[in-house]
Amino acid sequence: MTFSSAFDVDIDSTSPPIVKGFRFAGIASGIKSNGKPDLGLILADELVAAAGVFTRNRVRAAPVEIAEKRTRKGKLRAVLVNSGNANACTGAPGKKATEVSTAALAKRAGFKAEEVAPASTGVIGALLPADKIVDAMPRLLDAVGADRASDFARAIMTTDQWPKVAARKVRLGNKDVTLLGIAKGAGMIHPDMATTLGFVVTDAGASPALLAKLLREATDVTFNSVSVDGDTSTNDSLFLLASGQSTMLKAGAKETARFREALIDVLGALARNIVRDGEGANHVVEIVVQGAKSDADARKAAKTIATSPLVKTAFHGHDANWGRILAAAGRSGAVFDPAKAEIRIEGNKTKVAIVKRGMPIGKEAEAEAAKIMATPSYRILVKLGVGKGASRYLTCDFGKSYIEINANYRS
Amino acid sequence: MTFSSAFDVDIDSTSPPIVKGFRFAGIASGIKSNGKPDLGLILADELVAAAGVFTRNRVRAAPVEIAEKRTRKGKLRAVLVNSGNANACTGAPGKKATEVSTAALAKRAGFKAEEVAPASTGVIGALLPADKIVDAMPRLLDAVGADRASDFARAIMTTDQWPKVAARKVRLGNKDVTLLGIAKGAGMIHPDMATTLGFVVTDAGASPALLAKLLREATDVTFNSVSVDGDTSTNDSLFLLASGQSTMLKAGAKETARFREALIDVLGALARNIVRDGEGANHVVEIVVQGAKSDADARKAAKTIATSPLVKTAFHGHDANWGRILAAAGRSGAVFDPAKAEIRIEGNKTKVAIVKRGMPIGKEAEAEAAKIMATPSYRILVKLGVGKGASRYLTCDFGKSYIEINANYRS
Repeated sequence: MTFSSAFDVDIDSTSPPIVKGFRFAGIASGIKSNGKPDLGLILADELVAAAGVFTRNRVRAAPVEIAEKRTRKGKLRAVLVNSGNANACTGAPGKKATEVSTAALAKRAGFKAEEVAPASTGVIGALLPADKIVDAMPRLLDAVGADRASDFARAIMTTDQWPKVAARKVRLGNKDVTLLGIAKGAGMIHPDMATTLGFVVTDAGASPALLAKLLREATDVTFNSVSVDGDTSTNDSLFLLASGQSTMLKAGAKETARFREALIDVLGALARNIVRDGEGANHVVEIVVQGAKSDADARKAAKTIATSPLVKTAFHGHDANWGRILAAAGRSGAVFDPAKAEIRIEGNKTKVAIVKRGMPIGKEAEAEAAKIMATPSYRILVKLGVGKGASRYLTCDFGKSYIEINANYRS
Repeated sequence: MTFSSAFDVDIDSTSPPIVKGFRFAGIASGIKSNGKPDLGLILADELVAAAGVFTRNRVRAAPVEIAEKRTRKGKLRAVLVNSGNANACTGAPGKKATEVSTAALAKRAGFKAEEVAPASTGVIGALLPADKIVDAMPRLLDAVGADRASDFARAIMTTDQWPKVAARKVRLGNKDVTLLGIAKGAGMIHPDMATTLGFVVTDAGASPALLAKLLREATDVTFNSVSVDGDTSTNDSLFLLASGQSTMLKAGAKETARFREALIDVLGALARNIVRDGEGANHVVEIVVQGAKSDADARKAAKTIATSPLVKTAFHGHDANWGRILAAAGRSGAVFDPAKAEIRIEGNKTKVAIVKRGMPIGKEAEAEAAKIMATPSYRILVKLGVGKGASRYLTCDFGKSYIEINANYRS
């Protein structure tokens, strides 16, 4: 695989661009008891091509089951999102509540409930108050505007500290194509399941099958290569909607490859934003594994390093603890010869090797590395020395407030 | 599988029994700069049947490589153990240092170096100071005694707060059989790799093949079913030595099954002791999964629950957070229907269900559960409701001092 700049993209999130064919809204419907925005809508001007990626957790909330079924048909008119309540582990009444909510939108807006994908995030085990959503529907539709993506971004937040928006414009086939991504935080800190929701809309067009393929590929190297605490939510959902009002993408075309890169950039920026937004996280760390027997092996090693509590606490202490990193790679299942392993710490300006041929270089190198590890963001390069497989994972440190917040969240 | 009392056994560790055919020693050789005991010896009167289980980490210390090779032959005269230095990631010089150390013992005691299994624990990346071990050899052999197991237990400690000893006597075939187990701590807290070393000696006898089988089976349900932070050491080693001076065990015999149970008891008690001995750990929690499609599925679920940082921080806060437990099971890969799942919290005296048919029972039940979770040790029973597969895992909570100690260990 090649390494795009996925995680490095920083895009101004204060003024999301207009995307032809889509309008947005975000209002307070009373699901959150503090009166903050909790109901969001993405409304397409007509039925548009759509794809989705959903949590692989066996325990899936009602909205996930329904959204997956509806999105699988490849066409959607709207996505209806609420925060403050995940509607997970709520049985048949939960399913009913989501159906009632999406039906209310469909009826009022004049399309079919099957054309609305739902998404929910918030407390689990509590039934979604569908009546509040139904009551708020006129206000929600009144609030809709092409320039209201920021309202939507705020309405889907749970304990996120800031709204997460990333956009990219690319010139494809003599036309300007815009991609706008909006997400809400997972987070090492975030209570309970730390649900990740992501939405990308574009004015490019594509067949549902191509769209699904592009989304899956881009998700693998971005949202699926991010670890905060290794847990997967009951509600994780990611959507891609394409209005087709600019260039039409075709499988195998050069433009499609460039669109894919732009999609990776947008999702990568959102993923990085999600990792950064942890109260206990002081450092965003990219784990890059190279020289593995295969990409799959590299991924195993990168993921195991990125989710090791011992490694993550060492990050918190700016400790160039190569032993923990090497041992995590060693237990990952990746095949390699430890006697050939190399580890480098790479900051914005300086790089330093701390392990060569499986052995530590010395205290001086580790002191240099510790300086880089005191900065907010750096990279750890692990070379396994047995092949050409590569992968990477984005993670963060484990700080004391992780324990504080997660131990006391519900008490 | 059936549940023995493995993790529940508490055995007085202050006066380990004599085991016919074995002598022990523990002295200070100067590897530890603070002058504490750091060199231990188990000496068999003659060549005895032996079996070993070693870390599956790809990164393995020199003593592990050598010990596995020698133990595989099925016969040992001695085990030579040092603390204070793991001799891991030390390349060819490390291998040489271990060879020199064991050769010094063999020469002085009058047997072959190939009959000595080495084990090391401590700082990694630093070469074992073989000269100190060689110099200390006369004193080590002078200190040997049948009643010196406690000295041995102390000499193998690193950051353990107490020596870990467990013993069991069983009457098999009209003879008294003794099993004596000695271990040192892994530990959620313990710096770097948290190496687990374990040694069981018995006066029962068995073929090396039977011994290896018994050790593997007993390890699976004890040492391999314990999680502190999910990391596996470069040095983990577990040995079983059988002098054969009492009953001879035969494959398939009733006595052998009873010996196996006793071995599980001893290893289970040691494993529990290791989990308890974490400075940040206030709670020892047994995760029991039942009703899975297979034992393998149950094990996946139990392990994922036991190693989830979100679950472990909830334990720290006495939070009956069924959502985190259910979601961990859900992402474990175990096949089940969440709508049939049950979760119970079981203390010494009281039990309370918090989830039935995949849905929460309510705040009152959770408040009851929180009371049980405030005690030092309890059980979480997760019923998946789809089959007869069962498994269990022993784990502990993640406290703030976990972060403190592990973030600052080397600084």
